[in-house]
Amino acid sequence: MDIVKKFVDADNFAKHLGIEMLEFGKGTAKARMELKQHHLNSARTVHGGAIFSLADAVFSVASNSHGTLAMAINVGISFFKAAKSGTLYAEGREVSINPKLATYLIEVKDDAGNMIALFQGTVYRKKDSLEEILK
Amino acid sequence: MDIVKKFVDADNFAKHLGIEMLEFGKGTAKARMELKQHHLNSARTVHGGAIFSLADAVFSVASNSHGTLAMAINVGISFFKAAKSGTLYAEGREVSINPKLATYLIEVKDDAGNMIALFQGTVYRKKDSLEEILK
Amino acid sequence: MDIVKKFVDADNFAKHLGIEMLEFGKGTAKARMELKQHHLNSARTVHGGAIFSLADAVFSVASNSHGTLAMAINVGISFFKAAKSGTLYAEGREVSINPKLATYLIEVKDDAGNMIALFQGTVYRKKDSLEEILK
Amino acid sequence: MDIVKKFVDADNFAKHLGIEMLEFGKGTAKARMELKQHHLNSARTVHGGAIFSLADAVFSVASNSHGTLAMAINVGISFFKAAKSGTLYAEGREVSINPKLATYLIEVKDDAGNMIALFQGTVYRKKDSLEEILK
Repeated sequence: MDIVKKFVDADNFAKHLGIEMLEFGKGTAKARMELKQHHLNSARTVHGGAIFSLADAVFSVASNSHGTLAMAINVGISFFKAAKSGTLYAEGREVSINPKLATYLIEVKDDAGNMIALFQGTVYRKKDSLEEILK
Repeated sequence: MDIVKKFVDADNFAKHLGIEMLEFGKGTAKARMELKQHHLNSARTVHGGAIFSLADAVFSVASNSHGTLAMAINVGISFFKAAKSGTLYAEGREVSINPKLATYLIEVKDDAGNMIALFQGTVYRKKDSLEEILK
Repeated sequence: MDIVKKFVDADNFAKHLGIEMLEFGKGTAKARMELKQHHLNSARTVHGGAIFSLADAVFSVASNSHGTLAMAINVGISFFKAAKSGTLYAEGREVSINPKLATYLIEVKDDAGNMIALFQGTVYRKKDSLEEILK
Repeated sequence: MDIVKKFVDADNFAKHLGIEMLEFGKGTAKARMELKQHHLNSARTVHGGAIFSLADAVFSVASNSHGTLAMAINVGISFFKAAKSGTLYAEGREVSINPKLATYLIEVKDDAGNMIALFQGTVYRKKDSLEEILK
């Protein structure tokens, strides 16, 4: 999984948001994001875009964990509860995979284990290897 | 719309991402995001989370433009084309509204007018006025 | 759960499609649909609308199982595999619930246990009791 | 478009639901469904599955109108208003298309022009010609 590690490290946007990848395997990943002032929206709760981005980072690593490039084509996300501070965690698993398409389900929870959001995403799987993409 | 202007200015996350609100009215909004290195993912294209966040900022302003707090409950987004540089634009309109719920459709395009993503989001409308939220 | 049983029996559309509710509890439900010629689309596989409807029947029973009227406001569904014959099963569980909104996840599988579709739906919970609705 | 006409006529499920295709072209389609007792759910309004199926029939024809097989991979649908009687209309257009994937937006309205639902669906485009599928 060295190439997946390199893939994780190359994600500028995740870094800009303070997203840390905690672990990953074939079709799975887990990340966290410690909440800061810059994650908040106008109502002083965590911005939907920040919650989505945390889940999306997990989605990206889980779907690229097979070593070939996966591109997001569709996501549905439900938001359950406003978060204000502390740390958010996102954990994802593969629901379905075939040579062209794969779908992942990612749960976002707060420190206390409350469900914050549920994210269901589908990728199109290209033939390009991650080695090629990252060189 | 002074209170909506104040609402726009209070969005820390949008600022962190360089999202600029260009215009807004009852149920509508338009924004842009100039692409920088920190918007890119591991494949050196714009991160899905950055595209979502741009559309989400428009969704937030359009749905809060009636002066009472609107909270996102669900979003579906389709991604059509990878973007790499230049500026992205998002423009949204109200598809349906009743006292409790409202739905918006937001198109994200690049400089050249190519469709990058389509975002369909629903909010739950609370009774709290924006004045109260922002004071 | 007598009122939920009455609610299940009153679903004309589910009957028209041959959907049988196998079991239900607070926030859960399970149903099956034996595939017939009239479930097929032009490509001779089960129509997306038939698969959605099976999951939607489970969604409806699970979300109305608390005894008050729940109305669907949003659904995201991913389709994984074409089904042609045999029986499809749908099973749902509650992911999140508050006084106004609730979200459910429903898996659709074939006889052999293959994932056919994944359905994520949100309802708006009204105050009307099912007794009132069904009388 | 003779082959698309043949494709429309081969849809058993659409017939079972009383869905009539009114017109279609490259990337577009329009259909109607006269509401009957068998379209109703337990609350005596049109079942979400029936509304979805009407939109899905339009989605299928619009996405197969290019003459090669298109298979639904994801749909997001928002429901705005309960319908009880009269006729529902669904009209769809292509939002984006490339050799592998295409996305469509379908509006469902009632007799009076009220928005009933908005459906956003993505297909995977196979190489098989409709001629081959339908022979």
